[in-house]
Amino acid sequence: MYTSEYLIGYVNKAVREIRYPDEPDGLYEPIRYTLDGGGKRIRPVLTLAACVALGGDIDVAKNQALGIEMFHNFTLLHDDVMDKADMRRGKPTVHRRWNESTAILSGDAMLTMASQLVGRCDVAKMGEVMMLFNRTAMEVYEGQQYDMDFEKRPDVSVNEYIEMIRLKTSVLLGCACEMGAIMAGGDGCERSLFYEFGLKMGLAFQLQDDYLDTYGDPAVFGKRIGGDILNDKKTWLLISALAEDDSGRLLDLVGSNIAPEDKIAGVTGIYNELNLGQRCHDIIDRYAEEAIDTVKKIGLDEDALAFFVNIVNESRCRTR
Amino acid sequence: MYTSEYLIGYVNKAVREIRYPDEPDGLYEPIRYTLDGGGKRIRPVLTLAACVALGGDIDVAKNQALGIEMFHNFTLLHDDVMDKADMRRGKPTVHRRWNESTAILSGDAMLTMASQLVGRCDVAKMGEVMMLFNRTAMEVYEGQQYDMDFEKRPDVSVNEYIEMIRLKTSVLLGCACEMGAIMAGGDGCERSLFYEFGLKMGLAFQLQDDYLDTYGDPAVFGKRIGGDILNDKKTWLLISALAEDDSGRLLDLVGSNIAPEDKIAGVTGIYNELNLGQRCHDIIDRYAEEAIDTVKKIGLDEDALAFFVNIVNESRCRTR
Repeated sequence: MYTSEYLIGYVNKAVREIRYPDEPDGLYEPIRYTLDGGGKRIRPVLTLAACVALGGDIDVAKNQALGIEMFHNFTLLHDDVMDKADMRRGKPTVHRRWNESTAILSGDAMLTMASQLVGRCDVAKMGEVMMLFNRTAMEVYEGQQYDMDFEKRPDVSVNEYIEMIRLKTSVLLGCACEMGAIMAGGDGCERSLFYEFGLKMGLAFQLQDDYLDTYGDPAVFGKRIGGDILNDKKTWLLISALAEDDSGRLLDLVGSNIAPEDKIAGVTGIYNELNLGQRCHDIIDRYAEEAIDTVKKIGLDEDALAFFVNIVNESRCRTR
Repeated sequence: MYTSEYLIGYVNKAVREIRYPDEPDGLYEPIRYTLDGGGKRIRPVLTLAACVALGGDIDVAKNQALGIEMFHNFTLLHDDVMDKADMRRGKPTVHRRWNESTAILSGDAMLTMASQLVGRCDVAKMGEVMMLFNRTAMEVYEGQQYDMDFEKRPDVSVNEYIEMIRLKTSVLLGCACEMGAIMAGGDGCERSLFYEFGLKMGLAFQLQDDYLDTYGDPAVFGKRIGGDILNDKKTWLLISALAEDDSGRLLDLVGSNIAPEDKIAGVTGIYNELNLGQRCHDIIDRYAEEAIDTVKKIGLDEDALAFFVNIVNESRCRTR
């Protein structure tokens, strides 16, 4: 089995080697800018790792890994327009650096390029691969729509929230894993266990994201702590707190325009009284354990199994 | 051969029968709104007609026809956001009726749904079909990018303009025709002649659009005459006039904020002095003749050939 670092390096090299037409530069330059921007490359690494773990050659899943990374970056690009976000991975977002039309059109091109990459495989596999990819894409859009709908709803439940992050984030990790399994020629059982593994890992991953935004160490987190609180973002923490805090203090803080430090301190204080930091981490651990239990059922060799157990443990223990 | 009216009815029925998930409504309702909005349905009609003309069953090309219509409507939806257009086919555009995020996300979903529809065919054909569709999509984005680039450039040549409309508009008509030929099991020669036919017809079609915007009959055109002139839109007429008018009068009018009627009258006056209306129509006729010559080479039966000759002639003689 390859190491995580090797696979990340493999993905970065493959990303750099993507060839774009020279013209029109206004269409292709923002795509290069977005994809070269880095990120954890977790999805393509999962695709390659699942393929190799089932005995496939790493190169066999290269285009699918790239296609999924391209799709992921397309969603970030369009989400940033919808969220009016200014920065991404320490650089101005495409719609700030260029303009909104550029962000929309280059994103569209990325979606089509993702589809081209994913479908670049044996004819015998093309049907399954495209069906999985397109179904996943539709689910990701549905998740983004629910996320936007939730902003306007005061009564979102924890279950609805989990379903939203399942769609918006987790299914793409499930798809990334299953895609690797398909490319390796895995059977139906291996494919669905890998999908399930990615899904559970994705839930743990997204909840960890929410957790770190409030409880991360400012020195290593890379973003300002408390951003979600300042934006009244409906995370697991806020939704749980809204359901449990009957003092009315939280409702007063949400949507208020008091000084940022006071708002962060006030909301975090209520989270602490309800022990939500610990409870959030318990749920993360539960999903992580479920992911590990699932991957154990596939019957991988020791080396490959250790890779996936490690990637889950690193993910749940990450600090940024 | 079916009549044009029959095929339009067939497409409209198929569009109405597309099943969308119930939830989230905020994602799917704008898609229904866009697709049910009508339009000429020229692209799906061409797909069905090409399939039938080569002896294929009409149902064989149904999903591909729908997919191409879905793609076309996706491009209109996103173009309307980029152009900040308020109305489309007599109704508020999606970003006006809902908001910009809805227009972006629903458009993304339409692109993925288009890909699903186009790829819904025999495994043996999936590779060719998806390659044609994705290549065409990339060309359409390139055309849109050039169109936006041209807005900021004072020196666009007529040849550059023709290349832009080839990409933005014509290749999709070529793709629509070739897609029908592929679904009918047409050979390489039939496929490329049908592509070429659609391409030439698309050039005539787009130039006719430009022509009508200035020279159409206000009573039947459906939009205000002179919209392109008021927006300083770089059409064939304006680009040709800018290249030929050395009096400086046109440059004074372009970008000026004089009364709309005066601007339209002034620019149209210069077009008339240069005989550009007639010359534009001569070019439309040339492309239309080339389209007809191309389709004649395929060796269709009399009935089918008459269908395609008619559709070109109706298109070049249309008044709206």
